[in-house]
Amino acid sequence: MNFKTQNEIGSSRIRRNLMAMLLVCCSCFLAKAQTIASPNKNLSLQFELKANGVPSYQLTYKGKPVIKPSTLGLEIKDGASFMEGFSVTNTEQKSVDESWNPVLGEQKTIRNKYNELVVTLAQAKNNNRYIRIRFRLFDDGLGFRYEFPKQEQLNYFIIKEEHTEFQLAGNHKIFWIPGDYDTNEYAYTTSKISEIPSLMKKATVEINSQWPIKELAVQTPSMMKSDDGLYINIHEAALVNYPAMSLQVDATTFKMSSHLTPDAVGNKGYMQTDAQTPWRTIVVSDKATEILASKLILNLNEPTSYKDVSWIKPVKYIGIWWEYFVAGKSTWAYGKENNVKLGQDFSKLTPNGKHGATTEHAKEYIDFAAANGFDALLIEGWNVGWEDWINNWKEEVFDFTTAYPDFDVKAVHEYAAAKGIKIIMHHETSGAATNYERRLDRAFEFMNANGYDAVKTGYVGKIIPRGEHHDGQWMVNHYIHVAERAADYKIMIDSHEAVRPTGLNRTYPNWIAQESARGTEFEAMGGLNPDHTTILPFTRLMGGPMDFTPGIFQTDLTYYKTGGNQRVNTTLVKQLAYYVTMYSPLQMAADIPSNYTRFPDAFQFIKDVAVDWDNSYILEAEPGDYITIARKAKGKDAWFVGGITDENARTATIVFDYLPAGKKYIATIYADAKDASWNQNPQKYTISKVVVTAKTVLKQYIEPGGGVAISIKEATAAEIKGLKKI
Amino acid sequence: MNFKTQNEIGSSRIRRNLMAMLLVCCSCFLAKAQTIASPNKNLSLQFELKANGVPSYQLTYKGKPVIKPSTLGLEIKDGASFMEGFSVTNTEQKSVDESWNPVLGEQKTIRNKYNELVVTLAQAKNNNRYIRIRFRLFDDGLGFRYEFPKQEQLNYFIIKEEHTEFQLAGNHKIFWIPGDYDTNEYAYTTSKISEIPSLMKKATVEINSQWPIKELAVQTPSMMKSDDGLYINIHEAALVNYPAMSLQVDATTFKMSSHLTPDAVGNKGYMQTDAQTPWRTIVVSDKATEILASKLILNLNEPTSYKDVSWIKPVKYIGIWWEYFVAGKSTWAYGKENNVKLGQDFSKLTPNGKHGATTEHAKEYIDFAAANGFDALLIEGWNVGWEDWINNWKEEVFDFTTAYPDFDVKAVHEYAAAKGIKIIMHHETSGAATNYERRLDRAFEFMNANGYDAVKTGYVGKIIPRGEHHDGQWMVNHYIHVAERAADYKIMIDSHEAVRPTGLNRTYPNWIAQESARGTEFEAMGGLNPDHTTILPFTRLMGGPMDFTPGIFQTDLTYYKTGGNQRVNTTLVKQLAYYVTMYSPLQMAADIPSNYTRFPDAFQFIKDVAVDWDNSYILEAEPGDYITIARKAKGKDAWFVGGITDENARTATIVFDYLPAGKKYIATIYADAKDASWNQNPQKYTISKVVVTAKTVLKQYIEPGGGVAISIKEATAAEIKGLKKI
Repeated sequence: MNFKTQNEIGSSRIRRNLMAMLLVCCSCFLAKAQTIASPNKNLSLQFELKANGVPSYQLTYKGKPVIKPSTLGLEIKDGASFMEGFSVTNTEQKSVDESWNPVLGEQKTIRNKYNELVVTLAQAKNNNRYIRIRFRLFDDGLGFRYEFPKQEQLNYFIIKEEHTEFQLAGNHKIFWIPGDYDTNEYAYTTSKISEIPSLMKKATVEINSQWPIKELAVQTPSMMKSDDGLYINIHEAALVNYPAMSLQVDATTFKMSSHLTPDAVGNKGYMQTDAQTPWRTIVVSDKATEILASKLILNLNEPTSYKDVSWIKPVKYIGIWWEYFVAGKSTWAYGKENNVKLGQDFSKLTPNGKHGATTEHAKEYIDFAAANGFDALLIEGWNVGWEDWINNWKEEVFDFTTAYPDFDVKAVHEYAAAKGIKIIMHHETSGAATNYERRLDRAFEFMNANGYDAVKTGYVGKIIPRGEHHDGQWMVNHYIHVAERAADYKIMIDSHEAVRPTGLNRTYPNWIAQESARGTEFEAMGGLNPDHTTILPFTRLMGGPMDFTPGIFQTDLTYYKTGGNQRVNTTLVKQLAYYVTMYSPLQMAADIPSNYTRFPDAFQFIKDVAVDWDNSYILEAEPGDYITIARKAKGKDAWFVGGITDENARTATIVFDYLPAGKKYIATIYADAKDASWNQNPQKYTISKVVVTAKTVLKQYIEPGGGVAISIKEATAAEIKGLKKI
Repeated sequence: MNFKTQNEIGSSRIRRNLMAMLLVCCSCFLAKAQTIASPNKNLSLQFELKANGVPSYQLTYKGKPVIKPSTLGLEIKDGASFMEGFSVTNTEQKSVDESWNPVLGEQKTIRNKYNELVVTLAQAKNNNRYIRIRFRLFDDGLGFRYEFPKQEQLNYFIIKEEHTEFQLAGNHKIFWIPGDYDTNEYAYTTSKISEIPSLMKKATVEINSQWPIKELAVQTPSMMKSDDGLYINIHEAALVNYPAMSLQVDATTFKMSSHLTPDAVGNKGYMQTDAQTPWRTIVVSDKATEILASKLILNLNEPTSYKDVSWIKPVKYIGIWWEYFVAGKSTWAYGKENNVKLGQDFSKLTPNGKHGATTEHAKEYIDFAAANGFDALLIEGWNVGWEDWINNWKEEVFDFTTAYPDFDVKAVHEYAAAKGIKIIMHHETSGAATNYERRLDRAFEFMNANGYDAVKTGYVGKIIPRGEHHDGQWMVNHYIHVAERAADYKIMIDSHEAVRPTGLNRTYPNWIAQESARGTEFEAMGGLNPDHTTILPFTRLMGGPMDFTPGIFQTDLTYYKTGGNQRVNTTLVKQLAYYVTMYSPLQMAADIPSNYTRFPDAFQFIKDVAVDWDNSYILEAEPGDYITIARKAKGKDAWFVGGITDENARTATIVFDYLPAGKKYIATIYADAKDASWNQNPQKYTISKVVVTAKTVLKQYIEPGGGVAISIKEATAAEIKGLKKI
């Protein structure tokens, strides 16, 4: 088959270009077993019906078992289940090879190439009611889902549980966080699968509004490595109108099985045909770099239906935010009171004297943002309600349209607009999604009226509707509803504490980033493990961009003399490297401006680094150990490299073969100083300029908990004169 | 004390005029028992602390026990309860005598006269945390509530159960429907309290989305009559931010106790100080007429905060509605399909050929409405989604803004506007309140854009948020939220299947009527008992106006030859009487226009009758047996009388002493014909014109299941010439 990359017509349009399609209808020959191979033949998927008509599948990679025979099916509430008694009534195969251009992304063009097998399964005992299982086998892994076509015998049903099994081939190493219906902000544990039971209690640290799953379970994306060197990542794609899936673990047989998030009454999914589950995804390779390079999950999501995406833009921003965690002198709340109600006169509160979101303070940040080329400023704590916003399961916490008396929305907007800075709205819901939905139109109208085009949403706390969970079907629909409504107002969304992403940024490209993991804020609440960010790209970021909020220069937090936690567990340079290793089209420079002023040469990298890309190159990677990535800025002849390591020093091998051949470039290398590490001299670094070409190979030593960041640009002969060539 | 009725300045303003206030602070003398009397001394309320500091109260009427000593208190979740260990730290008494003018109502001016006792109760064991119990003793009954003032020791708490007891003095006759979290559409059972257990199963007939309370319980308003002739009505007033109360019944001791509607996780109320419960109300008299005349529940509600109420108007309307129940030729749905989704192209459905809400059919109804002086036309089934709207616990059933392909919103509006007819919007939610809330602003904007100023809302089906109930705190807040938002758009609300009303039409006067009981629609689904409407004013209507939808002329439903149920269990004239006996500022003429055309002389009463009143006079009443009411039209010298009986014939004694003395009036009397009854010749009636004066006493025979309706107007000598005087 031929493959042609599509000419990009414009980044504002997502275009699908179906290059080749081969349709093989096998309804005349309904063998019980069906096998397809990936386009490059490395992967092989076999479907078969076992005894009693139970569906089963298995997956191999280069002949090695990835998923040993595993059953498929769904248990239905108050009705016959889709578990057994099936016969195959039809199978279809086709091959697809197309490419498309994401609005924002790690690469300008994404190739979508797979072989597909669709099996139709009917239950004779249930009036020949039927479902379909659709398998798509890519070179980088497998996606499959259940489909429920509209039929006389099947209109509405409720899922009691999905029983999709993943029978792993051995006692793999696994990077995991506890299964939980309400939070994904746990630290990762690295262990053998067999060790999960003994480590679960310790791993289940206290987090606001958590609901650990009673059964032994871990969350997806679940990253594993087999003893024989296979990297296996299990997750899901296109989580729409369905609850999020966790993986129940049998730690003795190494079988994992789907565990859906229940709703308030214990049901797991309300289905109306035509319907389908999200895709269950297994990304697999014998190279860790190929796991990070996989676009399988994005490919399994639907193209956007937005007609105009010109207003969706990458954002580099600062925020009135980190000072709330570390400086101790400012707060989200305005008043001293701990019991307030919407509608009361907040100007009558007793000011606590520490309110962060004041007009004056905002202007200081705007000045800094403008002076340093940022796009936007996030301002948290601008709106009334922060005095008692947390832990009360209160519904009407915020109204999203009323500012504190010391924050002048109009004045701040006008000041910012005059300096070319956008203000990022902040909508913390306190978990009260119902309250947010009923006020959503007015909140977005308020944003439009005041020049905001992006909002950071937050879901800290127990969900309302009460009994629902962050990861249940109702909330999954809520997040999408917010993204869709926001699009009507041309507003971009950055959701925090939402369900883990599943590639929906393809379908809803204005949902530009999410938190949905343990991010930088935890550096101020006990610290992140030095290997945390070598795991996140293999887990959380498989689903989509993360608003990780890097850029902390003042890593020793005792600097603020406010007690509390002691240290951000990285070197300063590792924070720079995050802008490349932690992909997001929305990137924050999270530290307080005064800390950047103290390190202007290092800050230059943050000012320079791109946030949207023509291409990305995963140079080195090992989950839990290290990652090195190079990326080319979107539409510019500029490249950036980020490399990080865990608590161990290492020498990164950085190639430059993605640079156009025959030209010379200036690489500015930001490196840890020799005696720097995450806990010793983290702010010591070196900056050097060297000449590189496509043939250059750089051996770069990285200190414990450290990193390397490189910016590369074309240069004239005059500019490179005197620079060292490596 | 002096009492002066206030001069009405304008019906659009609610004015409070505090005539006298006597404040007696008794904090210096904290007797364990406190007694207050009603202004007329008939009622006496005693509060006392029993052993272990348990609050208790008792109520007598003319020396007879109404409520024997009964305890008060609330059980708190995960915390110390407000049940015992109290000491009285303060008591206050005051007297109030004021009057106010409802926007719409049974009388132009309502007097609010009571003596109040407020007891402050502190718990030494809980850091002197305190609550208040506020008692208001009127001539017509008692209201009391719990109050939770803001205090350092008390900000947020969750109610596990309220334990308010009503120890009745005997085995009263009671008119009851089963306690249920989701529906109030049961038929009434009349029995002794002791008989409730044996009758409960039979009384709990099947109703869409019901949730009968496990414990033996009945709903409020609960109407009782003691063997010694006391009429006692227990209900609640101002149900705001709290779940509805049912009454758990001890059928051997005749003790009733509060049972609150739980939420999705079993909690009963989320409270934030300052907070209070609704008022618990006990209306009591030895005259049944005084129960119906009571305005105690309205008086206990807060005045409206709306600044402009000029847009709130009484409405007499017809609707494309009854034909869906009886005629068998029209349906809400447009398509034959039973599985549709918002967003699909509904014009592609297969038309079932029976769609009722077509542009053409609407125009026919508009013509009829205009020709007969109606204000408005309700059109149900205009919007997409009716094909599968019920019983699927589906969330996105309706969008409230998309019409079926055969209904042209703009054309219908313009046609109606040209003829002076308003269209009443219909928002059936199918119980999916979340879906309604997220679309509410757009739905109301759509109404404003298309000239609608009133909407009938519906909540048929299991509630979403799933696990919540129609009568729980979340839904109570929802209905109020809808009313408040509607007011922002100057829209009036008529809610169906909502929680039973508690006088909130004072506070939210645009919430002009509710169904919230078994209404006329059940005449097409098995029929209402002939005594049903002699009970409703003593129960359901104690809380507020009911959109009962009277006016069915074609009572024999076999007329339609569509099978199904047989009969509306009233005479035609009883349907006329309902316009007076069933108070509502929103009154429907529910029958199909062609049935009115067949009886133009009887129809004249519906055309003439007022729906808003200067005054009302309860002439005769006995719950379960008969009711006769006279009312004076608002701002007009016109009076209307309605009298109904149950299945037994009777002679009503109708006085006219409310007419200005010394003048002669023409009374047009619509009476059952001699051989008419609810099941024999129900459409036979007589119409006679007679002269009446203030001194007239009319003995009017009413046939079984029948009624009498009278319209009275001033007349010239010429007009009354030849008329009989009675």
